[in-house]
Amino acid sequence: MDFNISNFIDIRSRKSKIGDFQDLDHIDGVAISTINAGLYQEKRDDLVLFYFRDGASHASVFTQSKIISENLKWNKKIKSNKIYGLLINTRNANALTGTDGFNALKQISVDLSKILSAKQNKDEENPKKIKPKEILFGCTGTIGEKFPLIKIQNSISDLIHKLKYTQNKLIWMKAAMGILTTDLKPKLSMSEAKIGSKNIKVYGIAKGSGMIYPNMATTLGFIFTDANLSSSILKDILKKNIKSTFNAISCDGDTSTNDMVSIFSTNKANNPIIKKSDDPKLKSFNKAVNEVLLNLAKQVAFDGEGASKFITINCKECKSDKDAKNISLSIANSLLVKTAIAGEDPNWGRIAMAVGKSNGIIDEKKLSIYIGPYKIFFKGSLYEKYDEKKVSEYMKNDSIEITVEIGMGNKSFTAYTMDLTKKYIEINADYRT
Amino acid sequence: MDFNISNFIDIRSRKSKIGDFQDLDHIDGVAISTINAGLYQEKRDDLVLFYFRDGASHASVFTQSKIISENLKWNKKIKSNKIYGLLINTRNANALTGTDGFNALKQISVDLSKILSAKQNKDEENPKKIKPKEILFGCTGTIGEKFPLIKIQNSISDLIHKLKYTQNKLIWMKAAMGILTTDLKPKLSMSEAKIGSKNIKVYGIAKGSGMIYPNMATTLGFIFTDANLSSSILKDILKKNIKSTFNAISCDGDTSTNDMVSIFSTNKANNPIIKKSDDPKLKSFNKAVNEVLLNLAKQVAFDGEGASKFITINCKECKSDKDAKNISLSIANSLLVKTAIAGEDPNWGRIAMAVGKSNGIIDEKKLSIYIGPYKIFFKGSLYEKYDEKKVSEYMKNDSIEITVEIGMGNKSFTAYTMDLTKKYIEINADYRT
Repeated sequence: MDFNISNFIDIRSRKSKIGDFQDLDHIDGVAISTINAGLYQEKRDDLVLFYFRDGASHASVFTQSKIISENLKWNKKIKSNKIYGLLINTRNANALTGTDGFNALKQISVDLSKILSAKQNKDEENPKKIKPKEILFGCTGTIGEKFPLIKIQNSISDLIHKLKYTQNKLIWMKAAMGILTTDLKPKLSMSEAKIGSKNIKVYGIAKGSGMIYPNMATTLGFIFTDANLSSSILKDILKKNIKSTFNAISCDGDTSTNDMVSIFSTNKANNPIIKKSDDPKLKSFNKAVNEVLLNLAKQVAFDGEGASKFITINCKECKSDKDAKNISLSIANSLLVKTAIAGEDPNWGRIAMAVGKSNGIIDEKKLSIYIGPYKIFFKGSLYEKYDEKKVSEYMKNDSIEITVEIGMGNKSFTAYTMDLTKKYIEINADYRT
Repeated sequence: MDFNISNFIDIRSRKSKIGDFQDLDHIDGVAISTINAGLYQEKRDDLVLFYFRDGASHASVFTQSKIISENLKWNKKIKSNKIYGLLINTRNANALTGTDGFNALKQISVDLSKILSAKQNKDEENPKKIKPKEILFGCTGTIGEKFPLIKIQNSISDLIHKLKYTQNKLIWMKAAMGILTTDLKPKLSMSEAKIGSKNIKVYGIAKGSGMIYPNMATTLGFIFTDANLSSSILKDILKKNIKSTFNAISCDGDTSTNDMVSIFSTNKANNPIIKKSDDPKLKSFNKAVNEVLLNLAKQVAFDGEGASKFITINCKECKSDKDAKNISLSIANSLLVKTAIAGEDPNWGRIAMAVGKSNGIIDEKKLSIYIGPYKIFFKGSLYEKYDEKKVSEYMKNDSIEITVEIGMGNKSFTAYTMDLTKKYIEINADYRT
């Protein structure tokens, strides 16, 4: 991507279309810094620090891959209720790097916690001694390559020197761009909520599936809020909302060693104390987190490699939630469906095929298929009023909706993906030439 | 493909390389006929009849999709121990065609059995009255389109008129070409075996993943032998050998409504009577069936749409057979692995990723990865003597071998696939333009 921020600033409104980022603003208790640590050959920021001066409650979900990166091994061991730093680097995934990769993070966490503690002594009334185990890491990029410990160590004091306690859309944009690999667009989303009478901000940034020399698709998502909530409540809310958002997108069916979505709350909003995650006072906050996660997930899908179309797949009337998810992801992951959509062909037979090969409970005689608003296949037969010309016209849209009704129950799921184009192959096969 | 047979005849030897067909010869008890029934606009044979004048023992395996074509519904109802006809049409899959599609086959089976019975009266000393339920159907092509009953009915008497009781490589080639859709090459394979002192022939033809306007990938495989074996023994042998052959290939991870592999024995070889499928006398026959199935499966993979390279994936040292199969197919189905190979890049990180996302029991510290003869990742660390240049050179081959050692047990599996190229997208997205 072109790392000139002026390409992105001031051209978008807050009310965004699918795939467009939103502008973010100040959030109390978050400080941000980005720097060019020289991890790439090109000139761009590649190291991003989020510093929580008074600590942040936090929760994370990680990749389901059984081979995970060294930073996820580190993060999974963090037991502290509050964390003070989140350091994200691109260019190197720190995966399959063994003990060396893990020890590099250990070293950085020691350095970072020392300098941040010194900053506390300088800036805070009641300075806190920050521990290495109060820092989280996000890594994305090449796997199996030696982790660039020295370059990162050498950048830390400058990075901390550049920390800004007050954010604006420019700083958020720099952070969102600093975590990208080969994504074409920065990904930012925001929403607002109430807890009791207090206004709460929910902001998020993400990076999507991007890969460059030896590499893989990594999805990172980071949500920031000023709500006053415990880590365990955040965990419940994140787990609940990840299912229908980041876990509902599929770009190429592959799973990274590095995937990570985290939420951080700075507890500055002075909202009433919440003791349980099912407290009705959290309704609006829950909705805002879902909105931000879903918006980011859609931005990730829409910016999937080579994507020319965003695809929404609604699977309705399933026997179980599991069936609904399986069937919609079977459609979302089908190369034949994704290439047909790239070719703007209303090839409903491929959709039926993808339903048939899924693990769900299916009866052809109860199955109906729609593309956009058009009914095509209805309970086992071609719909008599199906007009292929109209649907062909619909296929020219940038955003395509597929709906399947299974006729077996009342469970549903919506998955998001993109089409599969020659550009995808170019990016993933010809990236060296 | 170019349906001019002279392009293929006399240019191959019996000892074939991967992806090359072999020449077949006469097999007692099989008669073959092919015809242009006008199912395509272009001039080519599209209807193929195999007629077993004295009946054939038979066994079949079908797609695991829950949405299956009308011909598979018909075939699954056949209880007769011997069948007399196998009729294969291309261009129309007879899938999602409902009762009309099923009734069309019923009508054809009535017509066909009548004319074949008349032929029996003319040709045989002890004529047999052939029943509609003694005929099997193979269909491939468009799904959801009205089945061309009339065109097929109108061709049946000519088709039967052209039946040849004596085969040669030309007739087999015409049959193999008559069942293709968008495959680029005919697929034929042969082997020989002994049962007792008798020589047994095992011949096979197949079609692979090919798709054209609204369509999907269908794999059909038909094996013919003169062995004297019961249908139940054939069933055991087919089921046993399908696992490591047709069920070990993956082209795009999609599953057709129409997949079908059948074996037919004409019982002409006069071999000793075999009562159980584990009879040691079947060892050589078993091996021959495996060879023919594996060779055909490889031809299908090598001719997968847009394929430029054939890929063999060996997964070794797994805890269970299921793990071994899951892990190898996870690699075989990974778009990132397949595009990296298309790009001739030894991107072992993507292989590790595909191992990690599979359902198998894995420990990164026990994992080793090889590309061709080159060790790259050894028990959790990059192999110290790994020389990327050598492996890059290896990647230029037409046939690429990947080996992963899981270090968890002694079970193994080998899967076959092809790379993913821009050509695949062209065939599957741009087929209308």
